[in-house]
Amino acid sequence: MPLPSQPIPPGGTIGILGSGQLGRMLALAAGKLGLKTHVYCDASGPAFDVATARTTAKFDHPETLAAFARTVDAVTYEFENIPLATVRFLEALVPVRPGAKALACAQDRLNEKRLARELGAGTADFAAIDSAEDLAAELARIGMPSVLKTRRFGYDGKGQVKITAASEAAAAWQAIGQQPAIIEGFVKFDCEVSVIAVRGSDGTYAAYDVTLNEHREHILHRSTVPAGLAPATAARAVDIARRIGDALDYIGVFAVEFFAVDGDVLVNEIAPRVHNSGHWTMDACLVSQFENHIRAVAGWPLGATARHADAEMINLIGPEAAEWRKIASEPGASLHLYGKREARAGRKMGHINRLRPARSLK
Amino acid sequence: MPLPSQPIPPGGTIGILGSGQLGRMLALAAGKLGLKTHVYCDASGPAFDVATARTTAKFDHPETLAAFARTVDAVTYEFENIPLATVRFLEALVPVRPGAKALACAQDRLNEKRLARELGAGTADFAAIDSAEDLAAELARIGMPSVLKTRRFGYDGKGQVKITAASEAAAAWQAIGQQPAIIEGFVKFDCEVSVIAVRGSDGTYAAYDVTLNEHREHILHRSTVPAGLAPATAARAVDIARRIGDALDYIGVFAVEFFAVDGDVLVNEIAPRVHNSGHWTMDACLVSQFENHIRAVAGWPLGATARHADAEMINLIGPEAAEWRKIASEPGASLHLYGKREARAGRKMGHINRLRPARSLK
Repeated sequence: MPLPSQPIPPGGTIGILGSGQLGRMLALAAGKLGLKTHVYCDASGPAFDVATARTTAKFDHPETLAAFARTVDAVTYEFENIPLATVRFLEALVPVRPGAKALACAQDRLNEKRLARELGAGTADFAAIDSAEDLAAELARIGMPSVLKTRRFGYDGKGQVKITAASEAAAAWQAIGQQPAIIEGFVKFDCEVSVIAVRGSDGTYAAYDVTLNEHREHILHRSTVPAGLAPATAARAVDIARRIGDALDYIGVFAVEFFAVDGDVLVNEIAPRVHNSGHWTMDACLVSQFENHIRAVAGWPLGATARHADAEMINLIGPEAAEWRKIASEPGASLHLYGKREARAGRKMGHINRLRPARSLK
Repeated sequence: MPLPSQPIPPGGTIGILGSGQLGRMLALAAGKLGLKTHVYCDASGPAFDVATARTTAKFDHPETLAAFARTVDAVTYEFENIPLATVRFLEALVPVRPGAKALACAQDRLNEKRLARELGAGTADFAAIDSAEDLAAELARIGMPSVLKTRRFGYDGKGQVKITAASEAAAAWQAIGQQPAIIEGFVKFDCEVSVIAVRGSDGTYAAYDVTLNEHREHILHRSTVPAGLAPATAARAVDIARRIGDALDYIGVFAVEFFAVDGDVLVNEIAPRVHNSGHWTMDACLVSQFENHIRAVAGWPLGATARHADAEMINLIGPEAAEWRKIASEPGASLHLYGKREARAGRKMGHINRLRPARSLK
């Protein structure tokens, strides 16, 4: 279905696949703009509580998907692990933004890395792994330590195993389930950074300031702006993201995660969605990543990505959210909670944005 | 029912009476904090689209009100013209914040003015009017021009008539329906300002910066901070609001509208709710008036009322909202739309907040 040339007017409805916290914050941003939301997910979640309409159904149920499509003016999604077939089915009925092309690429670590190389960006050494023999051969070529990752469905460190000696290879191949994989050379990076970018339905592009990311146990712990990169390095990261967005005919917000090494940046991952490392934009910018995604999906003009403050975002993981009352008392801190019932270990329950008067604005 | 000493934890539910744009923005703010909402109104409206649960029923239906009360941890309201009996009925079942005492005062212009005088604040000359004879007598005492206003159910210039000559008195008394009224001497003010204040369940008090307000055809057109008042005058307005909040045992956000005259402020109106002249706090402060109201209602610590920018709020009335696409393109502007279907004349469809780097912060 061709994309409509007219924007979705206020009062229109954005369909969102997925009911997690990203869907919740997208729905809240749509609400600010006078748009309705219809959240579709195979299980209820935080986004249901703030959505105009909710559907609980499997992602491979054509009748329910078709009924959903009839109630919305465009569809987007809050996570990349929805079936590609679902997006392709919906695309025949209603605009889906970003489209299947972007999703197909970002669902596969191998495709991501190949795209980055094609666009002239650096990555870690990598190779496709389809067998124990592949793994042994590529480990010998790339060297160790290396990281074996499933090509699909990995996040927050899931689906990956570090290999430090050839003797560990067989166990690693077992551990990831002997499925199509990628082996990546271990990068001794200076730091991890990300670019949160947005591309409009007319190809316009904007990016928020590069963000410094720190992980704990493979889960994002802290994001900070400014990231402290040299301006030329930051500009290169923003430009790589632009090329990725153009190559994927992307519409909406996406994140590119990089390793910063010796003044250059290596592409690590592409996320075809709003991203945890962009949550600081909710308080440090007039237009957040969530609002800009909704604007792009609705065919509206993009909003400014400038920030008015330096910022730090801290994730509240599992029991850390029990400190909400203390955090709520902290001047200069903005508390965001996702309304999740159980504070299970490793579960993202909310985040704090701490602002400081900007010393680093151009 | 005594107020609970424990705050309502994340995941709890705030009941909201009224489904207009103020209820909508309250629900969005509750969503940021991980709280659910249940909106109750006699007609569907913009707040329904972002609420977790909705009830459409009359405000005098005890069974439905009781069922509503069972689903929520506290109740608040977005407008002051709900029946006092509704609030009293609910108060027996669940905490209602602000309480009936505050609502009873703010529903009656005469009570408001008397309270202000009792607290040592100035007001326009005023008198109670219960008959054509009262009106004739008080017009002679106060002089003209004067304004005859119904004691109850007035907003945006409704329920009031200006009287410039004694010969107009009989028609004015007819025009407002010969109901209990108040006559007020016309104040030649320098400007109109308001204080948006919040009082917590523990009696803590905070106020946003005094706001300058300009009306068009009795509807708020523009609010600006800083207001340009002398610091002592602004401090006096903030202090009067504090005394009003204390006197009413108030919990939540409220607005006090003043006339600024010759370096003093005269109390004009008290609004027991979030207020249109506080919409700039949504973008110029880390914690908006809506979030602070929800925090107070939930028994949470109040958030900081500091602003990081100078700001101007412009209401989008009726067809003005058709300019949304142009406004969405404007850097430095934040667009808020309420999702109302019909852009009827005089209807508040949304607002714009325009920020400028703060030159006026202490």
